[in-house]
Amino acid sequence: MKKLLFSFCLLGASLGLRAEDGHQLWLRPHPAAPVKVVATAKNSALLATARQELARGWQGPAGATVTLTLRPDKALKPDGFRLGPTSVQAATAAGLLYGAFELLRRQQTGQPVTTEVVNPSYERRLLNHWDNPDGSVERGYAGHSIFWRKDSSFVVTPRDKALWQAYARANASVGLNGSVLNNVNASPLILSAEYLGRARAIADVLRPYGVRVYLAVKFSSPVLLGGLKTADPLDPAVIKWWRGKVQEVYRQIPDFGGLLVKASSEGQPGPQDYGRTHADGANMLADALRPYGGLVMWRAFVYSPSDKDRAKQAYNEFKPLDGKFRDNVIVQVKNGPIDFQPREPFSPLFGALKKTSVMPEFQITQEYLGQAIDLVFLSTMWEECLRSDTYQAGPGSTVARCTDGSVYPQKHTAMAGVSNVGLDPNWTGQDFAQANWYAFGRLAWNNQLPSAQIADEWLKQTFANSAAGPRPATAADWNTNFLAPVTQLLLTSREAAVNYSMPLGLHHIMSATHAHYGPGPWWAPPGMRPDWTPPYYHQADASGVGFDRTTTGSNAVSQYHEPLAAQFNNPATCPDEYLLWFHHLPWDFKMKSGRSLWDELCAHYDLGVHQVRQFQQVWDQAQPYVDAERFAAVQDKLRTQSGNAVVWKDACLLYFQQFSHRPIPATVEPPMHTLEALITNDVQHKDAGPAN
Amino acid sequence: MKKLLFSFCLLGASLGLRAEDGHQLWLRPHPAAPVKVVATAKNSALLATARQELARGWQGPAGATVTLTLRPDKALKPDGFRLGPTSVQAATAAGLLYGAFELLRRQQTGQPVTTEVVNPSYERRLLNHWDNPDGSVERGYAGHSIFWRKDSSFVVTPRDKALWQAYARANASVGLNGSVLNNVNASPLILSAEYLGRARAIADVLRPYGVRVYLAVKFSSPVLLGGLKTADPLDPAVIKWWRGKVQEVYRQIPDFGGLLVKASSEGQPGPQDYGRTHADGANMLADALRPYGGLVMWRAFVYSPSDKDRAKQAYNEFKPLDGKFRDNVIVQVKNGPIDFQPREPFSPLFGALKKTSVMPEFQITQEYLGQAIDLVFLSTMWEECLRSDTYQAGPGSTVARCTDGSVYPQKHTAMAGVSNVGLDPNWTGQDFAQANWYAFGRLAWNNQLPSAQIADEWLKQTFANSAAGPRPATAADWNTNFLAPVTQLLLTSREAAVNYSMPLGLHHIMSATHAHYGPGPWWAPPGMRPDWTPPYYHQADASGVGFDRTTTGSNAVSQYHEPLAAQFNNPATCPDEYLLWFHHLPWDFKMKSGRSLWDELCAHYDLGVHQVRQFQQVWDQAQPYVDAERFAAVQDKLRTQSGNAVVWKDACLLYFQQFSHRPIPATVEPPMHTLEALITNDVQHKDAGPAN
Repeated sequence: MKKLLFSFCLLGASLGLRAEDGHQLWLRPHPAAPVKVVATAKNSALLATARQELARGWQGPAGATVTLTLRPDKALKPDGFRLGPTSVQAATAAGLLYGAFELLRRQQTGQPVTTEVVNPSYERRLLNHWDNPDGSVERGYAGHSIFWRKDSSFVVTPRDKALWQAYARANASVGLNGSVLNNVNASPLILSAEYLGRARAIADVLRPYGVRVYLAVKFSSPVLLGGLKTADPLDPAVIKWWRGKVQEVYRQIPDFGGLLVKASSEGQPGPQDYGRTHADGANMLADALRPYGGLVMWRAFVYSPSDKDRAKQAYNEFKPLDGKFRDNVIVQVKNGPIDFQPREPFSPLFGALKKTSVMPEFQITQEYLGQAIDLVFLSTMWEECLRSDTYQAGPGSTVARCTDGSVYPQKHTAMAGVSNVGLDPNWTGQDFAQANWYAFGRLAWNNQLPSAQIADEWLKQTFANSAAGPRPATAADWNTNFLAPVTQLLLTSREAAVNYSMPLGLHHIMSATHAHYGPGPWWAPPGMRPDWTPPYYHQADASGVGFDRTTTGSNAVSQYHEPLAAQFNNPATCPDEYLLWFHHLPWDFKMKSGRSLWDELCAHYDLGVHQVRQFQQVWDQAQPYVDAERFAAVQDKLRTQSGNAVVWKDACLLYFQQFSHRPIPATVEPPMHTLEALITNDVQHKDAGPAN
Repeated sequence: MKKLLFSFCLLGASLGLRAEDGHQLWLRPHPAAPVKVVATAKNSALLATARQELARGWQGPAGATVTLTLRPDKALKPDGFRLGPTSVQAATAAGLLYGAFELLRRQQTGQPVTTEVVNPSYERRLLNHWDNPDGSVERGYAGHSIFWRKDSSFVVTPRDKALWQAYARANASVGLNGSVLNNVNASPLILSAEYLGRARAIADVLRPYGVRVYLAVKFSSPVLLGGLKTADPLDPAVIKWWRGKVQEVYRQIPDFGGLLVKASSEGQPGPQDYGRTHADGANMLADALRPYGGLVMWRAFVYSPSDKDRAKQAYNEFKPLDGKFRDNVIVQVKNGPIDFQPREPFSPLFGALKKTSVMPEFQITQEYLGQAIDLVFLSTMWEECLRSDTYQAGPGSTVARCTDGSVYPQKHTAMAGVSNVGLDPNWTGQDFAQANWYAFGRLAWNNQLPSAQIADEWLKQTFANSAAGPRPATAADWNTNFLAPVTQLLLTSREAAVNYSMPLGLHHIMSATHAHYGPGPWWAPPGMRPDWTPPYYHQADASGVGFDRTTTGSNAVSQYHEPLAAQFNNPATCPDEYLLWFHHLPWDFKMKSGRSLWDELCAHYDLGVHQVRQFQQVWDQAQPYVDAERFAAVQDKLRTQSGNAVVWKDACLLYFQQFSHRPIPATVEPPMHTLEALITNDVQHKDAGPAN
C-alpha cells in the first residue's frame, strides 16, 4: 500500500481539479512514471496497445524496464500469461495485453506482483448488447446504443471511433474479448450490407484491444431478408443462404466471433416452427461457421405458455438433446431457471448436460434489480451462482466448473453478460453500475474471484484520489473511512435489494406496467398469459404463499441432483433464500428463526428499507473522499432508491396481507402508502426509466 | 364509569353489527333507558327538541323523571342553564336544549352530574361555511356543499332536510348556535330571491335546534346585484339599497343572525375603493341590521402586496379605528397574524382594541394542516391561542378573556370556525376531522375547556363500543388500550404536523400548486406577488433563515404588549416555537438544546415523521376496539400522511440545505426523495385533495 499512498501525494500535487462525469470508468488518468518497454515479439496492434497502456499507467519504479515476451508455453491458454514484477510472457499477443493490464491493475490497487501463471477461466468472455438497429436498447437504462444510430444512418464519425475505442479499452482492461453488437430479439436487418458495413467499422476499432465482434441473428432471416419461402434448417436453400451470408460476414470481418440465437422463444421464430429440434437449428448454423472457426451460442431461454411450471422447461427441452450439438455450438443458459430475478437457484441445466458445451448468461443491465437507479453490486449474485454446487459429478461440481470445462471437457467455453452500456456520459447511467461491468469482466476471466476483491479493486481504481475538496492525508484514512465502508455497502447491496423486493425465494412479482421496475404482485390483466403474471409465481392465497415445486408439486426439485433435490424438497432443510421458490407454505409456518413466515417476510422487507437508509448514511460519510459531481449523483440515486424500497415494502406487505390476514409486526416500520394508491400507481415513483 | 360499563354490556346484547360510515358523528344510536320528561315551559320547537333528545339518549336510571324548567335567572346568560342530576333549568328554551345535551353528554362520557350553573363563553358560536353558490366549497375536502346545489337548482328535497337537520342537531349538541351559509369570497347571487328562498328553507330546518342563519355578502352587491353605480357606504342610494335588502332578508328569515364581510381584502371590493374606512363600511351595514338585532362580522384579514411585512397589516389598519365601530359590529380576527398556519403567535389585534368588539376566527377545515388526509386534532392549537396572554390589561389578559368580554366589555361576543363539513358520508372526509368540528363547538361554548377533556369526550361518544369483532370485556380494557393511547395521539397530533411541516416558527412554506397541501419552500414564480410566495416568509440564504420581525427588522414585535415584545425580540428568550417567526438567525445559531439551528431543524422534521409512524402503530393496536370500516379508513389516511410527512421533511431539509451547506445529521433518517424530483412534482403524492 505504500506505493498507493505515494501516488496519492503525487496526484494531489500535480493534477488540477476538474468536473467528474464518470466517463473515465476505472481507467482514470494517472501521473505515470517513465517506463521502458522492451518487447520480444513481432509487432502487432495488440502489442502496440500493450506498450501504450504501460506507458500510460506505469506506477512502478521510474525508469524501470518492462519486458514483453512472446513464446509458446504449454502452461498457458491462448489469452493467458506469466507475470513477473516487471515482465509479461505469453503465447499470444493478446496474452501480453492482458498481462500488461494485470500488472497495472496490481500497481494501482496495491496488490503484490509475484511470478505466476495467469489463465482465464473461459475462452470467450462476452458482452451481449441488446441494442436494436434503431439505436434503442432493450432493458437499457443509460441512453441509446453506442453502436447503432437513432437516425439509422451509417456514417462513422471520429466521435464514434473514439467512443468504441474507449469501450474496447475498458473491456480489454478487465479481460473481456468479445461483443455481440445487437439484441437477441434480433432484426433481420443486422445481416444487411449496411449494418454489416458498420459492424466491420466497429470490429476494426475493437480489434487492437482483442475484442472480437459477434452478431445476434433472427432464425427466419432467410425468409425475411433472403426472400426464401422457409427457414427450415434442413432445407438445402436455407443451408445455402446461411453459408453465403456467413461467408459475406467473414469477408467483412475476418475474425468474426460467431452468432447468438434466440430461437423458438417468446414468439421468436425457430427450428420448432418446422418440426425440427434446437439441435437441428444450431447445427445448421454451426456447420456454416465451422470453416471460419466461428461459434454458435444457442440460448436455452425457452418456455411455453401452457406449461404448469416455467422453471422446468429449459431443462426439459435441452436435456434430451445432450450430445446432439456440434462442438462449435454452446448452449447459453441464464443463471436461474426463470429470468434474471433478484435471487434464483442456479439453473439445473448447468448440471444436466455432459456432452454439450454450456455457458452461463448473466444480466449486467439491472432489469429486475433497480435499473439505473438502485445501487446493486451484482458480483455477489454471480459469485453465488458460480459457486453453487450442481453435484453433477459429485461434490465440487460447481456451476463455475461445469461451464469452464473442468467437470466435463468442452471444446469451447464462454460466459456472456447482458451489457449495461449506453451513450450516457458515465456509460451506465448510475455511476456504481460501472462496477457491474467491471465485475462481470473479472469473473469471466477468473470465475473463482471473490466479490470482496473485485469491489476493492474497482473502488480503488474508480475513486481513489477523486475528491475535489480537502484530501485525506493518508491512504490509511482513505482505506478506513472510504474503502472499508463502501466495500461493505457494495457487498451487501444485492441482499438489500432482495430483502426489499423479493425475499425468501419470492420471484417475478415486479410491475409489468413499469417495465419491471417496482412492485406489482397484483398484476394480472384478464387474458394475459399466466406465466407472465406475478400471481402465477407467488401463488398467495389464504392458505399461504409460494410456488410448490416439490415432488408433490411441479416436481422441479427433481431436476437437481441429490443431495440438492432432497434438501430443496423439504421445507425444514430448504435454505430460507429459496423457500418460497420451492414451497407453498402456510402464513404461520415456523421459520428457522422461530418467527412465523408472515413475520419473517415483514422483517425482510423492513430490513431491506433500513439497509438502503444505511447505505445512504455510508455514502454521506464518504463525501470528503469523492468528487462533488459523482458524490451528488450517487447520493441522488440512493435517495430515490430509498423511497422506492419503501414502495416495494409497502406494496408487497399490504398486498400479501390481504391473504395472510395478519398484522404487520410493531417492530416493522408502518406502511406509508395505501395499497389502493400503489395499485393505481398514484404514488409510483416516476424516476424509473422505461425499457424503451 | 360504572354506567358507561353498563351501557357497553347492554349494547353488546341489543345492537346488531352494521357497516359504519361515520355519518352518526358523536351522536351514535344508544339503547336509551325509558325516561319521563316533565316540562314547566311553554311549548316550543326548541323544547320539543330537548324532549326528543332526552328520550333518544337517556342513559340514567330507567324510568327516571327529568324536569325542564323555564324561568328568569340572573345568573344565566341567554343560552346558559342550571344543571342537576335529573333537571335542567334555564331562562330560555335554547338553554333547556343545551342543558339536555349537557346531561346526555355527561352520562355518555361518565362525567359526574352535580348541581351547577353552566354559561357559554360567547353569545354567538358560529360556523363559517366557505360554500359557493355552485355547491363547491373553497378549502373544502369533504365533497360538495350540504346547502347549495352543484346544478344550482333550488328544489328542497326530503333528503336535503334530513341532512340539514342532522347537521343542526350535531351543532346544537356541542353548543353551536349559528351558521354563515356561504363563502366569505361571496357571490352577489346569495342575496338574490332564489338563494334567499333556499336560505329560508335551511333556516326553517335549523331553527328547532337553535341554530340561526347568517350570510356572507359582497360589498359591491349594490352595483353587481342592485344595478347601482357605486357601492360607496356613504352614498344614500347604497345605504337605501342595503336597508331594503336587509328588510327582504328578515322578511324571509325573522331570526336572521347577520352579515359577514370580507372587504378590501385579497382583491375583494370594499369601502377603501371609495376612500372610506373599514368602519364606514361596517357601520353602514350595522345600521341597516340594527332594527332587527342583526350583527355585522367584519373580517380583519387584510394585507397589501406592497407592505414589507404582511404580519403587521391587520393591526396597522384596525388599531386606529378602535372605537369607531357601531356596537353591533364585531371585528373578526384570524387566530394568527398571517393565515391559519400550523403555528402562529396570536394576532396582536386581540390585545390592541379596547372599544371595539373582537371575535376569533379559527379554521376547522385543515387547509394548511393536512386537509382531509392528515390526522391533526386542532383543539390544542386553538387552546394555545385562547390561553395566550396578550397582557392587554396586565397578566391574565388571555385571548380568551380579550374576546369573551372579560377584559373589556363587549356588547356582543362571538367565535367563528371555518367549517369542514361537506356531502361526504362521514361529513368531514377524514373520520378524525369530526373531532375538530366537535372541539370547535366545545371551545366556543367554554373557552377554558382543556383539549384533553374534549378529546376524551369525543372519543367516548364516537368510538365506544363500535368494534364489530370480539368486544372488550371491560371498560377498563377499553380505557387502557384504546382511550388512553388514542387520546395521546390526538393531543400530540398537531405538534407532529408542525414538526414535519413548519417547525421552529417557519410558516407559509407550503406548496401553492397543490392548493396548500405539501411542501413548497421554493415556490416563487416570476411576477408573483412576493407575499404569496414562501421565500418571502422563510428568507433563507447563506447567512441563515427566518423572518426578522425584531425592532431592527420589520418591528412586528412592537405590536405586542410587554413583556412579550421584549421576550419575542430577543432570540435568547423567544420561545423555540416562534423563533424563525421573529428572527432571521444563522444556521449555526446555538439553540436552547445546545444543538445548532440547522441540526435542530433537522431533528424537528425527523421527529415529525417518526411521530406519524408512531400514530400508525397506536391506531394499528386499536384495531380490536374499532369497527372495521372506520379502522381501515383511518389506517389508510395515516399511511398517506406518513408518506407525505416524509415528503415534507425531505423537501424542506434538502431545500434549506442548499443554503445551510451543512450535512443532515446521521441521527436523522436520510431523505428518500431528491429535491429535483420533489420540485418537479414527480413524487408529490396525488392523494392531496384540490381546494375546489
